[in-house]
Amino acid sequence: MLLQTINSPEDLKKLSVAQLVELAGEIRPFITDVISRTGGHLASNLGTVELTIALYYVFNPPEDKIVWDVGHQCYTCKLLTGRRESFCTIRQDGGLSGFPCKAESPYDVFDTGHASNSISVAAGLAESKRKLGSSSRIIAVIGDGSLTGGMAFEALNHAGHLRSDIIVVLNDNEMSISKNVGGLASHLNRIMTGEFMSSVREELKNRMKTMPTIYKTARYLEETVKGIFGPGMIFEELGFTYVGPVDGHNMEHLLETMRNVSRLKGPLLVHVITRKGKGYTHAEDDPERFHGISTFELTTGNSLSRGKKTYTDVFGDTIVDLAKMDERVVAITAAMGLGTGLDKFSAIFPDRFYDIGIAEQHGVTFSAALALGGLKPFVAIYSTFLQRAYDQIILDVCLQNLPVVFAVDRSGIVGQDGPTHHGVYDLSYFRHIPNMVLMAPKDENELRQMLYSGYRYARPVAIRYPRGEALGVPIEDDFHEIPFGTWELLREGRDITMIACGNMVATAMEAAGVLADDGIDAGVVNGRFIKPMDENLLAEVAARTGRILTLEENVVIGGFGSGVGEALARVGSLIPFRSLGIPDVFVTHGGQGTLRKSLGIDLDGIVRTVRTWLGKE
Amino acid sequence: MLLQTINSPEDLKKLSVAQLVELAGEIRPFITDVISRTGGHLASNLGTVELTIALYYVFNPPEDKIVWDVGHQCYTCKLLTGRRESFCTIRQDGGLSGFPCKAESPYDVFDTGHASNSISVAAGLAESKRKLGSSSRIIAVIGDGSLTGGMAFEALNHAGHLRSDIIVVLNDNEMSISKNVGGLASHLNRIMTGEFMSSVREELKNRMKTMPTIYKTARYLEETVKGIFGPGMIFEELGFTYVGPVDGHNMEHLLETMRNVSRLKGPLLVHVITRKGKGYTHAEDDPERFHGISTFELTTGNSLSRGKKTYTDVFGDTIVDLAKMDERVVAITAAMGLGTGLDKFSAIFPDRFYDIGIAEQHGVTFSAALALGGLKPFVAIYSTFLQRAYDQIILDVCLQNLPVVFAVDRSGIVGQDGPTHHGVYDLSYFRHIPNMVLMAPKDENELRQMLYSGYRYARPVAIRYPRGEALGVPIEDDFHEIPFGTWELLREGRDITMIACGNMVATAMEAAGVLADDGIDAGVVNGRFIKPMDENLLAEVAARTGRILTLEENVVIGGFGSGVGEALARVGSLIPFRSLGIPDVFVTHGGQGTLRKSLGIDLDGIVRTVRTWLGKE
Repeated sequence: MLLQTINSPEDLKKLSVAQLVELAGEIRPFITDVISRTGGHLASNLGTVELTIALYYVFNPPEDKIVWDVGHQCYTCKLLTGRRESFCTIRQDGGLSGFPCKAESPYDVFDTGHASNSISVAAGLAESKRKLGSSSRIIAVIGDGSLTGGMAFEALNHAGHLRSDIIVVLNDNEMSISKNVGGLASHLNRIMTGEFMSSVREELKNRMKTMPTIYKTARYLEETVKGIFGPGMIFEELGFTYVGPVDGHNMEHLLETMRNVSRLKGPLLVHVITRKGKGYTHAEDDPERFHGISTFELTTGNSLSRGKKTYTDVFGDTIVDLAKMDERVVAITAAMGLGTGLDKFSAIFPDRFYDIGIAEQHGVTFSAALALGGLKPFVAIYSTFLQRAYDQIILDVCLQNLPVVFAVDRSGIVGQDGPTHHGVYDLSYFRHIPNMVLMAPKDENELRQMLYSGYRYARPVAIRYPRGEALGVPIEDDFHEIPFGTWELLREGRDITMIACGNMVATAMEAAGVLADDGIDAGVVNGRFIKPMDENLLAEVAARTGRILTLEENVVIGGFGSGVGEALARVGSLIPFRSLGIPDVFVTHGGQGTLRKSLGIDLDGIVRTVRTWLGKE
Repeated sequence: MLLQTINSPEDLKKLSVAQLVELAGEIRPFITDVISRTGGHLASNLGTVELTIALYYVFNPPEDKIVWDVGHQCYTCKLLTGRRESFCTIRQDGGLSGFPCKAESPYDVFDTGHASNSISVAAGLAESKRKLGSSSRIIAVIGDGSLTGGMAFEALNHAGHLRSDIIVVLNDNEMSISKNVGGLASHLNRIMTGEFMSSVREELKNRMKTMPTIYKTARYLEETVKGIFGPGMIFEELGFTYVGPVDGHNMEHLLETMRNVSRLKGPLLVHVITRKGKGYTHAEDDPERFHGISTFELTTGNSLSRGKKTYTDVFGDTIVDLAKMDERVVAITAAMGLGTGLDKFSAIFPDRFYDIGIAEQHGVTFSAALALGGLKPFVAIYSTFLQRAYDQIILDVCLQNLPVVFAVDRSGIVGQDGPTHHGVYDLSYFRHIPNMVLMAPKDENELRQMLYSGYRYARPVAIRYPRGEALGVPIEDDFHEIPFGTWELLREGRDITMIACGNMVATAMEAAGVLADDGIDAGVVNGRFIKPMDENLLAEVAARTGRILTLEENVVIGGFGSGVGEALARVGSLIPFRSLGIPDVFVTHGGQGTLRKSLGIDLDGIVRTVRTWLGKE
């Protein structure tokens, strides 16, 4: 196999074009095979095999900097830059990251994970290069989906102004993760299907050659023609030279284009058309399912995960039931219809479903206005991506005190996607916003009832719940409203009471059982309201137990435990108090269980903490 | 005066065009006179007098919804909607808000203050209207500066896709607050100065009429001509119908245009050209200074503020000194060169100064990449606006552990600009981010030394400091590095120790003096590092004093005091502990002193809290 001979991009450069094509043919099954066993981002990586080869062949990384937007298309890069042998460890405990990672390789320029920032990175690198006198080329590869994020537009606008020497490669597959949306997508679509348009353009250009009198200079003619007739006028207007479209699976065209643009200066945009899932039929047919996928059977494409109900499923079912009950209920997501469980809702209520693209800022304010106008919006965005809309949550939702319900999926440790994806800040970033109500369910039935309760409270509400399988408890069809601001005493304990929130409640109950065997009488409270807190129950518990330990899958700083500490200080309680949660470090990737164990927030960790604190160990 | 007869937009409709022009002529001096005495946003309001009159004349608010982006141009609206009598109270204690405010008037649609969100609001309102069957029109008025914010682009993209019935009025004055930047600004500029271009377009259109063979249908011809030859092609490409440009100071043209577009459906963009500061010479000549201004002398335009040195001034001087010392030092701001004190720097080092426009997200990641490339970026953004880049601070700066120094101006209570502008969350949103170093200076000399120290630490650093005059302490020219992570014991106290941060240190010292007269021995610690905390000094203090009280001008939730509480819990200290800071409510507008008093965080409030706690009152 050719792939076995490639240990760095230097080795690539020894190959002929035909061999590069052959190499692409080897890489696809290699990636598909590994990912079928590890899970990962498949469709996006299969779409960019030729593009990656062409970039690392024509340019000279690591001196030249290639920045992958999001980074979920970096597998071919890893294979070409000395990580073929370890590729089978990708996303696993102690293995390769599923995203670019500076600590892993000098070829990885930036640790990425969230969309739309690559052009900003490229512009900054180009500017530092200009100041410090390096001659390396800077390339950003960004999908058309990522281009719907406003930050990408901000960067295009600024880089065009700076006349930055950057090459933006627009990887256009008409998808973000879901099918792409927006005026820009239609625009790109018109470019791609624009054969008729180009014949019009050609004829016009020819005719214009016969009309020189209206142009003052040849240069003006050239610029005007380019601006008016080029298919990438939106980019040209922002100051970029547009090149394309180029077939992203035609190696020869790609190489030629990249060679050409490598000789140009100033801001360039190369428009490359690719197909998500290219070369693996199941992924081509259903690229959204194969965007980020767990283990699957190679021949059939069928998922190997056991299919127990997840929190996401329960959200998906519940929002449908709420929508049947009240026609003002609408759902908003940011390019994550499937991931957030809104596929069922969008099929039943297509006109009440808004996929606003990778545009969380707009999505949140749009939802605020829907609420102001009288609708009942549910905003389903992953915890980590919602960070993008922090300011809009404060000012456009909470200052206006509008009834928007945030369904904050993928809270806590998400596992294999690693530090850019863990949802471990939400309790801290929501908790200090006035008017916000903040909840976390102990199980999937409570999630269902919280969604209903959030709908009933008619004010800003955020409900955070974890990635993955729920507990398997029975789910009540009937809705009942959870009394506002109340906790739930699940077990009385004389020696210590653990006040846990979200998925830590079940672990706390287990821990209490283990501790009982040691003769430690430990109580458990379901701290389902992070805000407002149940200060009555807290005071009662503080009066009746020896110690309080809070448990949360969120950073300890500013989180749930911090809130309990604030409440205890407020009432002047001097009960011995500790918080267990995620420490003040970025958490790596790996299995959810492994990571929880290493952070000391699993069953063993909790039991150990209590034993040590009580001097029983 | 005509203005005296206008108590609602209904009264407007009785006037002739000539009278509307006369009214505009009355409104300008009225506004200028009041603002010269109260301070406020002058230039932006003088630019939109005719536009506001035309909108409230042609449309039917409050049924029709007019959303002002940012809202710093809403004064004429206030005058036309029953708030003429109270206008002299604007921005004062208990008076009118300087921004649109729903609680104040049904004509105010949304409580605004941050840029670029009006199109999202309009799109959401239009969608709820479509669902709930209202027939009102939705209008968003947005400046060309606000359009550089990516969120506006996200909203244009989505509204174009939805085919929303909204009218976006682009108020184009080539300014955000500073002179506008970016590719889009150049594009708009080309439109405005495009007389030659339009003659070209006309001639081409005429000639094209003679070329029917290349068009399949008349409809296609129409669309193509509009798309290719309309000056607003960038908006057309996003799905908007472009109308303009219109002279924003010509009442007749404005009325005609608004009447025309009021009859159209789908997403419309009306391009209106205005002049910031129009009608008041001093403001026309220096619109940046007259954007947001404190009291000034009407005839000369000279500022009436006493001109004592502000924290902003000290930052401005220090960054120049650092830049002279190290040529890698660069400065980044978001349309706030003057406001952040970077005017001096930008004049001396124009090629090391980056005004990235109202685009905080891009600005932060751009700065991260500058640091990655080897430069020493200082990012000067107000506390409240930096909220927009929360996610980028986490992932693009702190996860990568890059040496970016954030100069977080306008932290704490800012006063007259009110709830959308108070910088009261930064300690909470920065504190829980791993790798972040977080400081606040007790005085202006410490600010200078902190900026130097942040530069030396070579890691992510945020330094927050307040709006307004500094203490007047001597400033050392020499730089010295503050020992990392250390607090400063300013006064020993047996009964209680106040650990204060930032501007609260001086108040704490005063309070300690007052308390001494009551026989209370109160100590004071300068908690200059919010993160990492000086846990050694904290433990010492906890061992030697009876109580600890933390003081901060930030929300108590998740803030400095919350951090001290976490640290005390970590070491198992049971010292009586309380936190004083901003409670969990949105803080209104008014004088800084008044607001501090009402929140109980002024000298009296602190003394009272301590006395009560110690049972001395």
